[in-house]
Amino acid sequence: MSTKIPSLDLLVHELSKLPGIGEKTAQRLAYFVLRSGDTFAKSLSHALLQVRERIRFCAQCFAYTESASLCAICESSGRDNASLCVVEEPSDLFRIENANAFHGLYHVLHGSISPLEGVRPEDLKIKELIDRVEKRHATDAPIREIIFALNADLEGDTTSLYLAKQLANKNVKLTRIAYGVPFGSDIDFIDRRTLGRALENRVEL
Amino acid sequence: MSTKIPSLDLLVHELSKLPGIGEKTAQRLAYFVLRSGDTFAKSLSHALLQVRERIRFCAQCFAYTESASLCAICESSGRDNASLCVVEEPSDLFRIENANAFHGLYHVLHGSISPLEGVRPEDLKIKELIDRVEKRHATDAPIREIIFALNADLEGDTTSLYLAKQLANKNVKLTRIAYGVPFGSDIDFIDRRTLGRALENRVEL
Repeated sequence: MSTKIPSLDLLVHELSKLPGIGEKTAQRLAYFVLRSGDTFAKSLSHALLQVRERIRFCAQCFAYTESASLCAICESSGRDNASLCVVEEPSDLFRIENANAFHGLYHVLHGSISPLEGVRPEDLKIKELIDRVEKRHATDAPIREIIFALNADLEGDTTSLYLAKQLANKNVKLTRIAYGVPFGSDIDFIDRRTLGRALENRVEL
Repeated sequence: MSTKIPSLDLLVHELSKLPGIGEKTAQRLAYFVLRSGDTFAKSLSHALLQVRERIRFCAQCFAYTESASLCAICESSGRDNASLCVVEEPSDLFRIENANAFHGLYHVLHGSISPLEGVRPEDLKIKELIDRVEKRHATDAPIREIIFALNADLEGDTTSLYLAKQLANKNVKLTRIAYGVPFGSDIDFIDRRTLGRALENRVEL
């Protein structure tokens, strides 16, 4: 629905490129921007530019960082550098950090292997992971455990299997996060694939 | 959930000011901005600034416009200037234009009377409406009908009643849009207040 006001239509068009934002929501957001003061449009506009200007990838783990070479986690002396958690996306890293249950280092693959979508191993930071493991093995502080925290879907499984094969002879313990019933959930509402996996991966009490 | 990356946290903070965008959605949008190319961040940022810079209110009807004085509708010679449709927000105007069922002029009140929220008649473009009607009455092309297309809620009703009183002796036909069951709806899913109104406002076949 065009408003016939070029700058308003353009803003609606740009906003509707955002994921999960349809045309109607984009219109609502655009009207909000118009109603709110100059400050909001300016500060949001500024924040958008800054995030693209300032954020780069950590040279070691490929997470987001504002620093020139290594991210805060890679540079921290307080982390257990014998364990490495492999994730698909930078956002997964923040999610795991927020759970406060892992204190090692990370490696961000930037995706998962997906033949259907044309994502091959060489499109991901897999070579960099192997190199990193090998380089550390040549030192007196090798990586002892690699935890795969990939999405619990076909692509995540494919990627885990591929990585496990590549890392098989590197003398590193390979693990993956547990699959099962999420905390606080009612069994009645769990889908059958999750339940199947939870039963398969049952643990002794 | 802070990512400890200042510019990313700032963008999440700004995005979560948008209506209906919670922190988690704001994060998802921010990651999307990071993943997409420079062009998107720049074009969205630019669109935000432009909309605030270029759009002003029409000097006659108070709708949004990019032109210096009157909006395209007020300036158009093809509209029926004997009928005026009164709406609450500029976005309502676009909605009605899109329905393509009204070909007169508009008047945007910029809100509705709401004692609870402290919105008084003098906070709205009501004086401007009365002036407009009076000015036109002094010419040989007076306004013949004013249609209230206000929200079907308490505030909309209060505003209609107030305006009807103010405009009572101006020799203008006052109408309001029909309240009833929306097109395509299943009676089973209609709330009782809508049904009550639809029955009250029944029309003869």
